[in-house]
Amino acid sequence: MALRQTTILAFAGGVGGAKLALGLARSLPPDQLTIVVNTGDDFEHLGWHISPDLDTVMYTLAGLSNPETGWGLAGESWNFLDALDRLGGEAWFRLGDRDLATHAQRTRLLGEGLPLSAVTRHLCERLGVTAEIVPMSDDPVRTIVHTDDGPLPFQEYFVHRRCEPRVRDFEFLGLPSARPQARLLEALAGAERLIYCPSNPYVSIAPIVNLPGLQPLIASRRAAGMPVVAVSPIVGGAALKGPAAKMMTELGLDSTVIALAEHYAGTIDGLVLDVVDAASAPAIELLGLRTLVTNTIMATDADKIRLAQETVEFALSLKGHGDTETGRQGDRETGRQGDTET
Amino acid sequence: MALRQTTILAFAGGVGGAKLALGLARSLPPDQLTIVVNTGDDFEHLGWHISPDLDTVMYTLAGLSNPETGWGLAGESWNFLDALDRLGGEAWFRLGDRDLATHAQRTRLLGEGLPLSAVTRHLCERLGVTAEIVPMSDDPVRTIVHTDDGPLPFQEYFVHRRCEPRVRDFEFLGLPSARPQARLLEALAGAERLIYCPSNPYVSIAPIVNLPGLQPLIASRRAAGMPVVAVSPIVGGAALKGPAAKMMTELGLDSTVIALAEHYAGTIDGLVLDVVDAASAPAIELLGLRTLVTNTIMATDADKIRLAQETVEFALSLKGHGDTETGRQGDRETGRQGDTET
Repeated sequence: MALRQTTILAFAGGVGGAKLALGLARSLPPDQLTIVVNTGDDFEHLGWHISPDLDTVMYTLAGLSNPETGWGLAGESWNFLDALDRLGGEAWFRLGDRDLATHAQRTRLLGEGLPLSAVTRHLCERLGVTAEIVPMSDDPVRTIVHTDDGPLPFQEYFVHRRCEPRVRDFEFLGLPSARPQARLLEALAGAERLIYCPSNPYVSIAPIVNLPGLQPLIASRRAAGMPVVAVSPIVGGAALKGPAAKMMTELGLDSTVIALAEHYAGTIDGLVLDVVDAASAPAIELLGLRTLVTNTIMATDADKIRLAQETVEFALSLKGHGDTETGRQGDRETGRQGDTET
Repeated sequence: MALRQTTILAFAGGVGGAKLALGLARSLPPDQLTIVVNTGDDFEHLGWHISPDLDTVMYTLAGLSNPETGWGLAGESWNFLDALDRLGGEAWFRLGDRDLATHAQRTRLLGEGLPLSAVTRHLCERLGVTAEIVPMSDDPVRTIVHTDDGPLPFQEYFVHRRCEPRVRDFEFLGLPSARPQARLLEALAGAERLIYCPSNPYVSIAPIVNLPGLQPLIASRRAAGMPVVAVSPIVGGAALKGPAAKMMTELGLDSTVIALAEHYAGTIDGLVLDVVDAASAPAIELLGLRTLVTNTIMATDADKIRLAQETVEFALSLKGHGDTETGRQGDRETGRQGDTET
């Protein structure tokens, strides 16, 4: 399937986002795709700067990611971590021996004064990634998960505590003074479509879209004819990966694609949902969103490419925010696609 | 061979020193041996504090050292370093995956405010080392090698430049304000014998003995009956390991055990030299040193234990600095031992 000539901006978090990002990168030439990645999960560990989402997207696009976990490197060894554990060190964050080199090199280059975006470009070049991966900001943002056990830095919540504490709220330290990375702003100005990858809406997409000044910019681009399409990370009432569904429940919401649509309503134009949630499509349409119902499970690279291409075609079928007439047309077109998939 | 009840203080650098330290540790109960290790080779690399000599002694005494190299861990993997090299990182210092955990944990504990001596004790406990290993100082000392290519931090000279630049002089940054570690002072006060392991006299033993106040303390202990014995790292005109012989040549000295004896003359009482240098013993005796001629090559653990025990027996055969009469007796006794070995 050949995609029409278009320019795509995608926002992504970790594993789920990286899968769609791979599909997009395999479907579009490098100069027509910009992948902006959440850095709210970044943290300092053992003296090194770790950017889990950037690494997941980078490793995935480099063809180096671990297909079992989605994060980390394929064929990784764990000798460092085993030895650290033996020495009584902090071994809760899974650092593979090869992965560790990424953190060492990133930390060194940051220490030399390079911004995170330049460091990311350098690492991508070294790993042979041609698609453009951009951290959402060169300024530090640190996600804090407020829980019944108190506030927890994201990796403490996510990895050390295995998402067990009950979530109350989220806070993004540094966000009010973080500047959207320049390439994000440039790409947004030029993009024909904006895609939210199937990433956690609260801790992956929210830190990006809540960067100062970004929401008005996205709104104005929508008004000027750039639809925004999200791919649902919620499938059949559960999250494919990570704590999104658990978070929704703990926040007093249903962990359904309809609740996800309500979360995004007013800020996006279309939602891609899984065939198992096909019955929810009419309710989502009533919220003013167009829908594409398709198989959103990305088990293989072929799945990732197919979903990316269907998502782009769906986004291209939508017209801007204001254009209801053509929007309906896109909707009907989409309905057919969805029927074929189910 | 059962050693007489005695208390030994040993000064050591890296590989050669660690071998004799192992022999001593296998021959004496833990409360009768203190091994003080050079920290002038320490450096900061990739944001971590690395203590090469402490690690070599610790790994050796833990039975974990690489028998091929003498440094690093047996059965080590190099996936971190290979990945770092691929990323264009600083891969010249050979950091194995398991070894890296030692640096991570040391750096973390130092960052928590623990002194290097306490960190070393912790690491030794974790690795099952029962002998006492003490860094010469908790204060930073950094060896600079002045060369024809300018001043080089020790690891830059030793590892990165492979000891190739011609040596002019040595400088120990921080040494004038470094305090000898408290356990070094306590052990010196109580030791019956002080042994300089077969380590580089310029960059391993010199930083220790030149700690402020230490030379007068050693001299007063010698006067009070604590002989000092050195084991020669120079065998047949070459260094068994490392650049000692090359340094001697570049400093305008002969790279011989006699030149080594001249270096130590006046500050030690006895010298253990190899059988291949037996002909040099009379000249060394003329410098006022007693000698033990024996096989100093430590290929196996049995060699290390034998040399350690012979060295201790030799040291016990010597009396303090001032006691010439008994010194001669020790000398004769030693001569017999040496004859037996040769």
